[in-house]
Amino acid sequence: MIAKTPQPPYWAVIFSSLRTAGDNGYGAMADAMEALAAEQPGYLGFESARDSGLGLAVAYWADLDSIAAWRANLAHVAAQAKGREQWYAAYTVRIARVERAYDWTRGD
Amino acid sequence: MIAKTPQPPYWAVIFSSLRTAGDNGYGAMADAMEALAAEQPGYLGFESARDSGLGLAVAYWADLDSIAAWRANLAHVAAQAKGREQWYAAYTVRIARVERAYDWTRGD
Repeated sequence: MIAKTPQPPYWAVIFSSLRTAGDNGYGAMADAMEALAAEQPGYLGFESARDSGLGLAVAYWADLDSIAAWRANLAHVAAQAKGREQWYAAYTVRIARVERAYDWTRGD
Repeated sequence: MIAKTPQPPYWAVIFSSLRTAGDNGYGAMADAMEALAAEQPGYLGFESARDSGLGLAVAYWADLDSIAAWRANLAHVAAQAKGREQWYAAYTVRIARVERAYDWTRGD
């Protein structure tokens, strides 16, 4: 569930959000968007977690063009509109260039 | 709970982790480290979420020197060692330069 990404540099889109109450179709749409994103050129991986309050999702991309194309994807644009209309109380999007990365696994 | 950060550029440290079973003092240490980080020079904010599997935590910093100083903080070094000894099954750390950011709040 930790994304296996290549050596930096690559890009991360950090999406921090607060949900409104109730599911209202959110879970199914989130799953569909995650699957659709994974088919896009330049997609490198995805991680997400939500507890009672904040949700964090990070998508990894090869370059800014890939991020721009996904942001403009028509199905994704519709999901974004639905998010503002119904699912989210607030969100922040941060686009960041990953410069360094390292990982550790127990027993390695 | 969404961090209020200044205009980019600034830095994000994305910490993705899988826990071992049980708390074993993790929650208290995580709270202590979050409070201690907030006192460090260059600290801009912190966000975290964990569901049943993956945990994501993102700390925002003014510059790479601030990140290096926090990584070398003695209490934090001890917590990192305890993390590898007991709390984490695996983790990945990514250090990224935030280039763009925007936010949205319902009713704004």
